[in-house]
Amino acid sequence: MNSPLRIGIAGLGTVGAGVVKLLAEHGRLLSVRGGRPLKIVAVSARSKARKRDIDLSGMRWEKDPMALATAPDIDVVVELIGGSGGVARRLVQKALASGKHVVTANKALLALHGTELAALAEKKQRSLAFEAAVAGGIPIIKALREGLVGNRVKRLYGILNGTCNYILTTMRETGRDFDVVLAEAQAAGYAEADPTFDVDGIDAAHKLAVLTGAAFGARVDFAGVHVEGIRRVTSMDIEFAQELGYRIKLLGLARETRHGIEQRVHPCMVPLDTPIAHIEGVFNAVVVEGDFVGTTMFQGRGAGQGPTASAVVADLVDVARGRHMPAFVVPAEKLATKKASPMDRHVGAYYMRLMVQDRPGVIAAVSGALAKERISLESMLQRGRSESGEVPVVLTTHETEEAAMRRALARIAKLGAVAEEPCVIRIEAF
Amino acid sequence: MNSPLRIGIAGLGTVGAGVVKLLAEHGRLLSVRGGRPLKIVAVSARSKARKRDIDLSGMRWEKDPMALATAPDIDVVVELIGGSGGVARRLVQKALASGKHVVTANKALLALHGTELAALAEKKQRSLAFEAAVAGGIPIIKALREGLVGNRVKRLYGILNGTCNYILTTMRETGRDFDVVLAEAQAAGYAEADPTFDVDGIDAAHKLAVLTGAAFGARVDFAGVHVEGIRRVTSMDIEFAQELGYRIKLLGLARETRHGIEQRVHPCMVPLDTPIAHIEGVFNAVVVEGDFVGTTMFQGRGAGQGPTASAVVADLVDVARGRHMPAFVVPAEKLATKKASPMDRHVGAYYMRLMVQDRPGVIAAVSGALAKERISLESMLQRGRSESGEVPVVLTTHETEEAAMRRALARIAKLGAVAEEPCVIRIEAF
Repeated sequence: MNSPLRIGIAGLGTVGAGVVKLLAEHGRLLSVRGGRPLKIVAVSARSKARKRDIDLSGMRWEKDPMALATAPDIDVVVELIGGSGGVARRLVQKALASGKHVVTANKALLALHGTELAALAEKKQRSLAFEAAVAGGIPIIKALREGLVGNRVKRLYGILNGTCNYILTTMRETGRDFDVVLAEAQAAGYAEADPTFDVDGIDAAHKLAVLTGAAFGARVDFAGVHVEGIRRVTSMDIEFAQELGYRIKLLGLARETRHGIEQRVHPCMVPLDTPIAHIEGVFNAVVVEGDFVGTTMFQGRGAGQGPTASAVVADLVDVARGRHMPAFVVPAEKLATKKASPMDRHVGAYYMRLMVQDRPGVIAAVSGALAKERISLESMLQRGRSESGEVPVVLTTHETEEAAMRRALARIAKLGAVAEEPCVIRIEAF
Repeated sequence: MNSPLRIGIAGLGTVGAGVVKLLAEHGRLLSVRGGRPLKIVAVSARSKARKRDIDLSGMRWEKDPMALATAPDIDVVVELIGGSGGVARRLVQKALASGKHVVTANKALLALHGTELAALAEKKQRSLAFEAAVAGGIPIIKALREGLVGNRVKRLYGILNGTCNYILTTMRETGRDFDVVLAEAQAAGYAEADPTFDVDGIDAAHKLAVLTGAAFGARVDFAGVHVEGIRRVTSMDIEFAQELGYRIKLLGLARETRHGIEQRVHPCMVPLDTPIAHIEGVFNAVVVEGDFVGTTMFQGRGAGQGPTASAVVADLVDVARGRHMPAFVVPAEKLATKKASPMDRHVGAYYMRLMVQDRPGVIAAVSGALAKERISLESMLQRGRSESGEVPVVLTTHETEEAAMRRALARIAKLGAVAEEPCVIRIEAF
């Protein structure tokens, strides 16, 4: 029998406990599949007293997670603390610097410091593995770095946040509004008490930045991601979407344009006849368009104990087998520095919903504002009368540059008959 | 710069030409991603004179592909000849025996001799890689062997043959019959002149046997696959399926039962609310259910030059990087020998369409035959009168053992009022 891979785990929340369970349950299987036993030598977490549904016997308890980074009996540190800075960052840095491999599920850390950590890992010839950081159990990092390595990626996009997808799905299915559904999701444990990271798109943006790095062999550029969340999506928009043949999804999208790499996270109108429109509830999916492979899609549970533990353990087996590679497809010093393509240069179609006073001339004024920017209309829906005197008017446009759209919007917002800030959702064509 | 990976390619059909193109187009990119240049040293194909849309300059032409197996300047042989025996088998054997790595797209070879070849590769500590053998460009072998390695697979199933899926999709969309659609598919190049391997399910069965090996760590057992093709599916059944909330798909399915491993390829009634029901045309998809990861699905183009070349090159990059692992997840000598679970022991629900004489007592006789086997009905559809006097009667059953169903069918077939052999399609629950 080969010598075991000696593991130290920092963080015993849902995911950490899942990793302990998985390694206990499939220990024998994994020692055959990994070519050697996978052995948890030490663990560290904030509270030792907390009741956990796992067996920690035979594992050393380290009060200070940093001790894992330097312990001579540890080969690989699993960082499951979370957060883009603080202990998590120091732990990963120190572990790599001390010649340990690192497996992490920390998308925030990678989104902000991924390139620098990748360089450190390579300098030390150690693995920095993070399958669990994006899309839960879906092996999408491996697909990008290895399975689709023969392709130049033309575009990738995905549903990267299960909380948002659950909320949007439930809003559609029940007709209820965002606030109500969010509160329910919080009560059911599908959304955090502070939902900001999820519903404002930040979590999805972290994941997108990591995916972009791996797909395009580019330096991870979280600051280059344009981010909008789902708070402003109303059940009315969801209904209109259905009527127009779309479904509203929070997508993360990345592609190369002539202005650089465009990375954006925002609600999208997705055509109903595309597979990703039908990824519902807490599921995630990532679509990769490669120049040789064509369109591929990967879907599965984007979070949760089992799926995330599955991803962490896949990375551990890679480490056990000595399967090593650069974190973002190419060596860190060869990662391209690409300009972020500005959103003003984004070209696409738009959905716009206005609440207008139901009086003559309003539509003429709105379409005049669009015409001035040479934006042509694809369709228009107007709904009957209302008691308040305000009625929704929905317009969809042909492709136009975002800058033009913004100028038109500024004009429209100033029209006296337009009652509130127009709701604008980008329409995606796949 | 590291020394190049020296490649010999046997077979320059669609896929071989695609590999040459891909390596030419992305040569620089791949030398960075693979850590060293990927260089085609020699090629071999049946006809040197044949016009090909690729540049072979700088590559040695070997008249005899077997020369690639022993050439001292070759590190890896790419076998794209095809066929379960003959030259392909001898080439792979000899290449491995001579200490070369082998990359192949040959599902028939692997389905019949996979275990033996895996053992040979391991004895020589060389890679036997075959991402291109199953589901075209979808990196499903890598997902099973690596990305989902932490899971015990509970079940896997997939649409593994694009020709059949194209035919079934077109039959549904146009209402035309199998023979007509097959002829069109042949004219359009989507089906071979001799379509047997595809439409009779053999190609899908080859792929399923390979997937089963990788998913369950079991010896590849093609003989254990129960195979039925799509020739007997009529447009009438496709219509009834729609009415009952199903879509008919040729699936390959594998799971462990208490009788052993059940592997089967046959037309299935797939519920419309499952993602795989919506994989249409030439697309393939594979669903893997793991005990930790839950349900994951991988979809993409299942054949064609670009996708298959993408998969071959992914394997070549793994070889270039020295990422080596057993062919079927665990070392060949540890592959489990599992009994094939007999189809008589299969438990599931059934769709049955009978053409019956429209006269009193027929339904009573049919349902009596089912009741005798304790098979309970889920639903029954009867269509009005016809000029011929024969009308279709469609029954769906609750779960029952296949042996009971067969006994009931034998009785039903003998009823005077039943005009032709009943059409039976298994209903799958996911």
